[in-house]
Amino acid sequence: MFVRRLSSLHLHQSPLSRRSIASVAWNDQGITLERKDTRTTRLLPHTWLRDHCLCPRCIHPGTRQKLHGSGDIPGEIQPSSVNLTDQGLKVRWAKNSTTEKEHVSTYPREWLKDQLDPSEAPKKAFRPTPWKATDLDPSSLQIPYKDFMHSDSALRIALSLLTERGVCFLDGIPGEERAIEGIAERIGPIRDTFYGKTWDVRADPKAANIAYTSLDLGLHMDLMYFEAPPGVQILHCLEQDVYGGESLFADSHYAVGLLKKDDPEAYQALVEMPVPFGYRNDGHDLSFTRPTLVEDGPAGLEVFYSPPFQHVLPLPSSPVASRQLDAFYRGMRRFKGYIEDPNAHIRIPLVPGQCALFDNRRALHGRTAFSSQAPGKPDRTGHRWLKGTYVDRDALWDRLAVLLADHAANDRGKGL
Amino acid sequence: MFVRRLSSLHLHQSPLSRRSIASVAWNDQGITLERKDTRTTRLLPHTWLRDHCLCPRCIHPGTRQKLHGSGDIPGEIQPSSVNLTDQGLKVRWAKNSTTEKEHVSTYPREWLKDQLDPSEAPKKAFRPTPWKATDLDPSSLQIPYKDFMHSDSALRIALSLLTERGVCFLDGIPGEERAIEGIAERIGPIRDTFYGKTWDVRADPKAANIAYTSLDLGLHMDLMYFEAPPGVQILHCLEQDVYGGESLFADSHYAVGLLKKDDPEAYQALVEMPVPFGYRNDGHDLSFTRPTLVEDGPAGLEVFYSPPFQHVLPLPSSPVASRQLDAFYRGMRRFKGYIEDPNAHIRIPLVPGQCALFDNRRALHGRTAFSSQAPGKPDRTGHRWLKGTYVDRDALWDRLAVLLADHAANDRGKGL
Repeated sequence: MFVRRLSSLHLHQSPLSRRSIASVAWNDQGITLERKDTRTTRLLPHTWLRDHCLCPRCIHPGTRQKLHGSGDIPGEIQPSSVNLTDQGLKVRWAKNSTTEKEHVSTYPREWLKDQLDPSEAPKKAFRPTPWKATDLDPSSLQIPYKDFMHSDSALRIALSLLTERGVCFLDGIPGEERAIEGIAERIGPIRDTFYGKTWDVRADPKAANIAYTSLDLGLHMDLMYFEAPPGVQILHCLEQDVYGGESLFADSHYAVGLLKKDDPEAYQALVEMPVPFGYRNDGHDLSFTRPTLVEDGPAGLEVFYSPPFQHVLPLPSSPVASRQLDAFYRGMRRFKGYIEDPNAHIRIPLVPGQCALFDNRRALHGRTAFSSQAPGKPDRTGHRWLKGTYVDRDALWDRLAVLLADHAANDRGKGL
Repeated sequence: MFVRRLSSLHLHQSPLSRRSIASVAWNDQGITLERKDTRTTRLLPHTWLRDHCLCPRCIHPGTRQKLHGSGDIPGEIQPSSVNLTDQGLKVRWAKNSTTEKEHVSTYPREWLKDQLDPSEAPKKAFRPTPWKATDLDPSSLQIPYKDFMHSDSALRIALSLLTERGVCFLDGIPGEERAIEGIAERIGPIRDTFYGKTWDVRADPKAANIAYTSLDLGLHMDLMYFEAPPGVQILHCLEQDVYGGESLFADSHYAVGLLKKDDPEAYQALVEMPVPFGYRNDGHDLSFTRPTLVEDGPAGLEVFYSPPFQHVLPLPSSPVASRQLDAFYRGMRRFKGYIEDPNAHIRIPLVPGQCALFDNRRALHGRTAFSSQAPGKPDRTGHRWLKGTYVDRDALWDRLAVLLADHAANDRGKGL
């Protein structure tokens, strides 16, 4: 089925060999290691070392959770002896006024190496690759529902697509209302909100949300008025026999890249200007204020874009603020232009049996307007019905990290 | 039952009267209003005004959501006429290259006043009042379960306690495993995590989390390794016949206040030093790095404190970083000292029929160790069983905002 190999997040690194450390010295501040390769020295403060002791009295063996806090480490803690052995650095801590018992810590060489040469934070390793629609081979984004549900390898590839491209599609899904719950739960727990665990997108004359009308719905993200808008959105098509109602997907990172290059001042305004988002309707009152762009979020660039739920921007109170507001509007016009370029966004009619999975923190989604007349059947009403749900980004990253680690372990097991 | 009156978030403000505006002028940038009271002028940029048009073609009447985005407003938009009437500011927009149709916007005087004199963001109005245990009258934190479930007024008071004090207690709860779901859903949807929709806190020899042992559990917060740790935690006591196992609650804001006063350098280190939190066990791999203190979060001060789930702090790579690490450890020692002061934290044995509701983003919780021998019954095993669940902070704020608005509307209706 899939032959694509994913770059592993879990590379084997060679531990610090005994010969790689030229000298070990200690004073009342900490232990200094001198490396042979770089001839550089590094101070490991005593408090830091004692805090990170790995012994079973410090880390609960069953749960791997710490049994003390950083606040438990006395500021004056000192070793009584320090030895570098084949196993690693062995430190015997002196008794003192606050720690009656003697304590011995051993820091394995691999562990020390990880601290001296920290690798990138794992979430930064889920690297998004910006795209415009014409870059993509749509078939590369398709995964059979059966594989997604039953093969961890297919799931890993789907979730890697979600983090790299921000969107993928499943097909062959049974036409059951609850099929989407199974799809979501392959990733993690469903994020329940006041919209419900799952929700129906179809034209409703008493709609409390414009998604539930037949209006054109420009490219946007959902739930920007929540503290942590969900990372995964799933839309499962159950019915589609109307004119229009095609689904649109675009990559916000692609548009941000263009904006930064074309108009740095407007880009900066989108980074700096707080935008209030809110939902005040139907017995609810939610709001959250955040800039459109955050440059250094936990996974790098963050984008928050949802015009229908944007509330009143603060009036500028100085000439500098007025100029920034101008740049903000210019940036929003440019951003909209980039994503609405037909070469930039995917435009597809979702058909029954298909679902779109997309990164709601990066991919923009929308749909064209539709008429409720069935195509070719002027005498009867057509229907468009999508079932939707959300999963948190935490759950996506959790699942993918574990799948990638298992995959890397399997590869190592096979001697690959 | 409760006679306490809550300060309303929704005060009536007098609209800008016609006489309060001395002059209206406009140029190609915007419309300038001169106020009679302060003799100050304020520029309302044309793009901003057009973007915030309130007419039914701009805001969907059913859903109250915007039908255009900031990116749709042409930069060169200009009025063809501007009038101040009894209703407010009426602007007729000139046709131009990008907007073929003429458009008329009316900005009511009350709306204009809100923009000229913006009130504080509503979430900042949920003002926490720091406390130490000896400040509190425990009975003021108790609410009968029946009232909480059936009276919106009792619910409003409970949720106000949650935002003001960070903790409250219900009693008279039926001894049913699922009672907690009803309690949570009075606030909002349950936040499902890999721990389950609800979870059991009791000693388990195969525990994957130290909460599920009989060990002492120092004061901490839950789920710091999630992007948005839940705002509400609920713990319902179903069984308690062991020695020990008392519940502890402390106010992190109280401790932060002391730290800032006693040791500004340590306080600053807790603001600046990113701390990695993580859960890597049992088929899961979650992590999130954040400082211990965030000074200006959406509701003001934010605290992230969970020693058992703190992962390895980065090794300092410069003398400045070493000094900051020292200050961090000093700050953590002081913080722990403040919250562990017996005058600072509440220590109560939860009994069956009781539950604690607390703000997991502010209140610290813990428990004393327990032995699994029933008190006074050496021949049989005792049990301690709490059922727990989470609700998002978004849902808490949503529910409370609506309850307070309804309450204020009722008061106005009564002419209070």
